[in-house]
Amino acid sequence: MPLNPASPAFIDQLMAALPEDTLRPAEPRYLEEPRGRYHGQAGTVALPRSVEEVATIVKMANAAQVGILPYGGGTGLVGGQVAPDGPAPLILSLERMNKIRDVLPLENVLVAEAGAILADVQSAAADVDRLFPLSLAAEGTARLGGVLATNAGGVNVLRYGNARDLCLGLEAVLPCGDIWRGLTRLRKDNTGYDLRNLLIGAEGSLGVITAATLKLSPRPRGLGTALMVVPDPSAAIDLLALARDRFGEAVSAFELIHRQGLEFMTEHLPDIRQALDPRPEWCVLIDLGMARDANTEAALLELFEAAMERDLVSDGTIAQSEAQRQEIWSVREHIPIANKAVGSIVSHDISLPITAIPEFIKQGGAALAQLGDMRINCFGHLGDGNLHYNAFPAQGRDRSEYADIRADIQRCVHDLVASFDGSFSAEHGVGRLKVKDLEHYGDPTKLAAMRAIKSALDPNGIMNPGVVLAAG
Amino acid sequence: MPLNPASPAFIDQLMAALPEDTLRPAEPRYLEEPRGRYHGQAGTVALPRSVEEVATIVKMANAAQVGILPYGGGTGLVGGQVAPDGPAPLILSLERMNKIRDVLPLENVLVAEAGAILADVQSAAADVDRLFPLSLAAEGTARLGGVLATNAGGVNVLRYGNARDLCLGLEAVLPCGDIWRGLTRLRKDNTGYDLRNLLIGAEGSLGVITAATLKLSPRPRGLGTALMVVPDPSAAIDLLALARDRFGEAVSAFELIHRQGLEFMTEHLPDIRQALDPRPEWCVLIDLGMARDANTEAALLELFEAAMERDLVSDGTIAQSEAQRQEIWSVREHIPIANKAVGSIVSHDISLPITAIPEFIKQGGAALAQLGDMRINCFGHLGDGNLHYNAFPAQGRDRSEYADIRADIQRCVHDLVASFDGSFSAEHGVGRLKVKDLEHYGDPTKLAAMRAIKSALDPNGIMNPGVVLAAG
Repeated sequence: MPLNPASPAFIDQLMAALPEDTLRPAEPRYLEEPRGRYHGQAGTVALPRSVEEVATIVKMANAAQVGILPYGGGTGLVGGQVAPDGPAPLILSLERMNKIRDVLPLENVLVAEAGAILADVQSAAADVDRLFPLSLAAEGTARLGGVLATNAGGVNVLRYGNARDLCLGLEAVLPCGDIWRGLTRLRKDNTGYDLRNLLIGAEGSLGVITAATLKLSPRPRGLGTALMVVPDPSAAIDLLALARDRFGEAVSAFELIHRQGLEFMTEHLPDIRQALDPRPEWCVLIDLGMARDANTEAALLELFEAAMERDLVSDGTIAQSEAQRQEIWSVREHIPIANKAVGSIVSHDISLPITAIPEFIKQGGAALAQLGDMRINCFGHLGDGNLHYNAFPAQGRDRSEYADIRADIQRCVHDLVASFDGSFSAEHGVGRLKVKDLEHYGDPTKLAAMRAIKSALDPNGIMNPGVVLAAG
Repeated sequence: MPLNPASPAFIDQLMAALPEDTLRPAEPRYLEEPRGRYHGQAGTVALPRSVEEVATIVKMANAAQVGILPYGGGTGLVGGQVAPDGPAPLILSLERMNKIRDVLPLENVLVAEAGAILADVQSAAADVDRLFPLSLAAEGTARLGGVLATNAGGVNVLRYGNARDLCLGLEAVLPCGDIWRGLTRLRKDNTGYDLRNLLIGAEGSLGVITAATLKLSPRPRGLGTALMVVPDPSAAIDLLALARDRFGEAVSAFELIHRQGLEFMTEHLPDIRQALDPRPEWCVLIDLGMARDANTEAALLELFEAAMERDLVSDGTIAQSEAQRQEIWSVREHIPIANKAVGSIVSHDISLPITAIPEFIKQGGAALAQLGDMRINCFGHLGDGNLHYNAFPAQGRDRSEYADIRADIQRCVHDLVASFDGSFSAEHGVGRLKVKDLEHYGDPTKLAAMRAIKSALDPNGIMNPGVVLAAG
């Protein structure tokens, strides 16, 4: 049964049931997304103040068979937060539900509402000398609900896991409008199916997360960072194993950097100081977070020497101060900015079994060379097997010249990823952008189970229609 | 629609479709469970050799509307592995599917079949100098499929998490008989709903896990163990916070021990050497797993001194050798054995928000004293908030004298747990034993969602009928 649009009559009904000023016409910011691929239809945004108001809204939308578009910080990269076509949904933003409800340092727990900005959650944890480790470029804007709905990743996954690994419990409104009060602070609770992890990563298509209990960690006291030059990606993987053998979980980030990214920076961001000269073809950024009083510089130096003996590294630099740490991280963090200045033909957020990465990089370069003359910047979270593998125009050419092979490049990369049992979406999710990729590359049994679950929990298909799964 | 029993005609059909010797009458061991509460009906056991054979069996059972009872190592404590009543199901044991399919030390990954014994998985990891950290008393008998289906916990959850946290991917047969090939080795993969975590902890009621990709960890090199005497559980919690502040994730176990358990040991296991004399009312076992060359004894001594300054500890012992470490652990490990020798009236596998534990212990003792004269042994994984809270007859009395208040004791404990937002099943699961507890204490919205998911994935209700949810 097709959905109904959020008609003026439906909005009037909602207005009558909710406090004044809960609904208003959606400003343009609710209709845009960062990559500019999708433009949302004009409509109404609901701004509830409590989980009970969310429940009222969802219940009425379900009864009227009107779609709901959950809206977090609007930073998603796969179009999950806009509805460019189909019956106009009601936009549901949780920005007014942005409280930190509770901070329990003795339990390493923080309870926050879905509208809380990620950076505010991090600060609230820091205020009690704890770490909320989820960290990503959009943290100043992204809201907790979206971060959880998309199972966000970021730079600390190697040590602390994805959003899913950092959440103990949820409060949510299911598509029928019932409230699930699941804000447990328990570390162990084997009482039934894992509804929490089903909602996390469902991108709003199975319900609306309204609050979460989050895991905090002790703050590492001794921080150390190094850049090390490796002969190739294979050596980088051996270096990671060596580092983890020595330091265990203290290896908190392990990032692969290719010369292409450094060259883009030289070209477009000449003020960013680059520690290594000449620019190496491949290097890795290693971040250590150790216990109090640990000598991280000595530890990194020992690692470097042990790696030298095994021909895994040839050069490098170890930060001797917090300022130097920031300088090294700044290089890594400016790569996406330099990429943006150059302008990619197409970008890929892929993951691979870690040991498959060297062969993937080799075959990927060869395969794309068959398609045309282009530059590849391959970088990312090597420790998690997550690469950002982006194709750029050859020097002096414009991306518009590649418009007709753009889809071929993407298909070529995703096919190769699939041949290595990798994923076409490591951390950004499916959204609208990759619904067809999921249909093409996804396991058919899993897809059938997903559709059955969607129908069971959301029989009218009101929750974020067209996201993850095609609208029914 | 009620299920059909696994009739001789149905078994004949299966025999015709499967290799010789796949089916046989179930020996008594398949009809028993460790606590002797439930006795399974006589029936047939299927012993498939491959996921394809599992799929054939499930497909035919689904068509014939015959129940399937997945059987792992048979060590579960809540009766999930036996069917005492209802239409006789087919018992499905994966013991022949016990291969370690792949070990990838560079990826910290191991792929094993569901029939593999947990201890064999641990050994295969140790053979490549890695750690598979899931460890529990039944590890020599428990099989991986059951460990995952019940989301097993154990002594290392504080550092490494539950079974759920140690699994990257699954191969499974869903109730329709289709095979989900989800044995991913990826650390990041945001392509659709989390079917993996839905099957983990579903206790066989949503499908049959046939193989899994598991996460390995670096082996900690410097191991240290201490027993420290604390004035009360509240000080134990402060000591845990102090330890984690100093050592971060290196705190791998933090176990609370009450004098009652030590006294039971003195009485029934006098050969077990107990390091602390006199026996303290409360003590904690702290286990550290640090990096190579770390001086764990010095680290534990510093922790002890810092805790002394804060009046958190009054006495203790730090292992000076591996033999002494084993001796300390032996005390902890023999508590359940001593308990068994005494014979409990009733035992509880509960979890609580960590900071609620002192108040729970106080109120629990007072509430049970109202019900009768009994002894309480409260011990367990304090770091995870998981207590084993067991009631024993008063000295000189027999458990049979308490038969009429047994249910009252249990209800009293579980009500108190619920009032602190705790769980009536921390690590053992729901099985058959706690189906009514789940109905009573579970969140109604979550229960409704669970029933909808069960109906969607298993419309005929063939998978482990009567476990987790009452048979339809």
